[in-house]
Amino acid sequence: MSNSERYDRGLDQLSAIDGEGGHKVMEALADIAPDFGRYIVEYAFGDIYSRPGLDAPRRQLVTIGSLTALGGCEPQLEVHINAALNVGLTAPEIVEAIMHAAVYAGFPRGLNAMFTAKKVFGERGLLPLA
Amino acid sequence: MSNSERYDRGLDQLSAIDGEGGHKVMEALADIAPDFGRYIVEYAFGDIYSRPGLDAPRRQLVTIGSLTALGGCEPQLEVHINAALNVGLTAPEIVEAIMHAAVYAGFPRGLNAMFTAKKVFGERGLLPLA
Amino acid sequence: MSNSERYDRGLDQLSAIDGEGGHKVMEALADIAPDFGRYIVEYAFGDIYSRPGLDAPRRQLVTIGSLTALGGCEPQLEVHINAALNVGLTAPEIVEAIMHAAVYAGFPRGLNAMFTAKKVFGERGLLPLA
Amino acid sequence: MSNSERYDRGLDQLSAIDGEGGHKVMEALADIAPDFGRYIVEYAFGDIYSRPGLDAPRRQLVTIGSLTALGGCEPQLEVHINAALNVGLTAPEIVEAIMHAAVYAGFPRGLNAMFTAKKVFGERGLLPLA
Amino acid sequence: MSNSERYDRGLDQLSAIDGEGGHKVMEALADIAPDFGRYIVEYAFGDIYSRPGLDAPRRQLVTIGSLTALGGCEPQLEVHINAALNVGLTAPEIVEAIMHAAVYAGFPRGLNAMFTAKKVFGERGLLPLA
Amino acid sequence: MSNSERYDRGLDQLSAIDGEGGHKVMEALADIAPDFGRYIVEYAFGDIYSRPGLDAPRRQLVTIGSLTALGGCEPQLEVHINAALNVGLTAPEIVEAIMHAAVYAGFPRGLNAMFTAKKVFGERGLLPLA
Repeated sequence: MSNSERYDRGLDQLSAIDGEGGHKVMEALADIAPDFGRYIVEYAFGDIYSRPGLDAPRRQLVTIGSLTALGGCEPQLEVHINAALNVGLTAPEIVEAIMHAAVYAGFPRGLNAMFTAKKVFGERGLLPLA
Repeated sequence: MSNSERYDRGLDQLSAIDGEGGHKVMEALADIAPDFGRYIVEYAFGDIYSRPGLDAPRRQLVTIGSLTALGGCEPQLEVHINAALNVGLTAPEIVEAIMHAAVYAGFPRGLNAMFTAKKVFGERGLLPLA
Repeated sequence: MSNSERYDRGLDQLSAIDGEGGHKVMEALADIAPDFGRYIVEYAFGDIYSRPGLDAPRRQLVTIGSLTALGGCEPQLEVHINAALNVGLTAPEIVEAIMHAAVYAGFPRGLNAMFTAKKVFGERGLLPLA
Repeated sequence: MSNSERYDRGLDQLSAIDGEGGHKVMEALADIAPDFGRYIVEYAFGDIYSRPGLDAPRRQLVTIGSLTALGGCEPQLEVHINAALNVGLTAPEIVEAIMHAAVYAGFPRGLNAMFTAKKVFGERGLLPLA
Repeated sequence: MSNSERYDRGLDQLSAIDGEGGHKVMEALADIAPDFGRYIVEYAFGDIYSRPGLDAPRRQLVTIGSLTALGGCEPQLEVHINAALNVGLTAPEIVEAIMHAAVYAGFPRGLNAMFTAKKVFGERGLLPLA
Repeated sequence: MSNSERYDRGLDQLSAIDGEGGHKVMEALADIAPDFGRYIVEYAFGDIYSRPGLDAPRRQLVTIGSLTALGGCEPQLEVHINAALNVGLTAPEIVEAIMHAAVYAGFPRGLNAMFTAKKVFGERGLLPLA
């Protein structure tokens, strides 16, 4: 597989999963590190996200667990909470995943992730959750 | 719900999910911090794991994402890779989750998690993966 | 002890320690994850903070050490620097604790914590420290 | 104050607080980075630990909170749990501090710290705690 | 060497490397923790940065790697990306260092660092990079 | 460029930089996650390490800064301290880089990195450093 095939496949994944949020990140890299954007498309999306071993909602659960635990990655968490909704996870499932991650990452990082979810859910008209 | 009901419910979850590995952790706490063990059973297992919002395999995907990203939690990752197998995730799905988490957590933490999985899979006679 | 007793006891602790800042966090969770707020009250405050083994000022020293080292938890640090003052630690003692934590967590995280303390102290009219 | 005064003052602190464990670390640095050892004595112990603003037990509570939250610092935690005992904190107070830190740092890092404490307490004949 | 010599030497380093950004940090500490500012000048700049073993550009490469990996240290990264330019690293070399660090720290922390670099480069009229 | 060209180029880099240590990691992945090993060769080494923007010693300085700050990545640090020596950094320069990173990452992570360097230097007969 050539890099351009990986790139095209990755861009399809990026569009399907992250949607507008993902494209904005790529555009923001254009004047400083376009290669970094290209690597993210080729490797993260073209190689990893394109693999059949886990479906898209399950991948987003791993992503939410990882980003909640890392801490300080609220911009990426915002993109991926949108992505999680885009691929079919429900808002209550995302809340559940964050509460679950907080067992491992502690309450402060859990709260930071939850308030990031609140921002996304609010923008998408999903609040209050029943 | 009383604390003893939470404890009993948590212990059922702990047995079903973490199995022997979870009980060993509780026993190891008995002579130094039995209350800490009780809180883990009551809160982590009795409260959080018992919630219906995410099924057990999905919870383990969040756990694997969190523990891979935290780093330095190989003993807990070992318990939870066993747990993931216990609740029905396959070894290749766990490998996939770790490769996915490495996009977010970096290759070194991905490698540490993968070699923890290798240890668990080896002990359970699952290697080599096809 | 029932969950409602734990909740009531936790709410008393939350009010006494975190004051208004803690209640604002709980209110902000109401439309997205009220159970998460309830768990924080029940477990963190009703179970842990209510234990007699360490007095409130000593607990806040552990909290400041933990939050400084975690990094990216400035909102929680803001609540707990207020809490530290509420339970009787002085502003210079809090400064001292952050300088101490920076030995372990590095200067950047120490600076982030110190500037969070500066914000809190300024709001409470405590600056300049003598 | 000259560097040699800072060094002497730091060495006194190191001996009083960390005891043998601290000196072993310094000796282990002798053939690779003696200056790094000297900086730790001069800065961490001669400058910071020598300040009057927090007494020695309170400093160790901040240290335990920081090291539990950092993760992956079990060797340093071992030195400082010994130090905490050396300066008058009791084993149950140390257990309490670790349970408290786990609210912020998550259960896995709390467990790693607790089992480090168990190792130290065992070596000093303090187990089982009542 | 006396503390005032270390301080003077550190201040020279701070001025040469971090420039205005470093002095602003020191000024911001003046009303809350002037000793913390003094320690940073004496130890970080007077002791460590003044050592001959690595030249200034190489030190900034280590700094960029460290701060990218730590996460949540964007204010310090902003000072040190300016510093890296001040001591002769080019903007493309800084971009390269951040892309390299992302292999180890993961893409989210790499993106946070890259967008911090974008802010600095924009303020200094260096965008778009060719 | 095709994936096999990236792989070949990456394998050349891996051999030149990490040497035997890198190949051992790849072999250890063979029975559990050969694709993960392939991605590391293709992306980390074939894409990133092969870029001309930073020479090999400078890349290892960024790597050492990143791995010291991440913490809990001693196995990877061991491979890359060997790599740093392989590409021409001297043992004293590596020591210097770790002392520098400790300003940002704190003394405990600095000590963990230094003792990893001590292990590598000892195996290569480089101790004591003059």
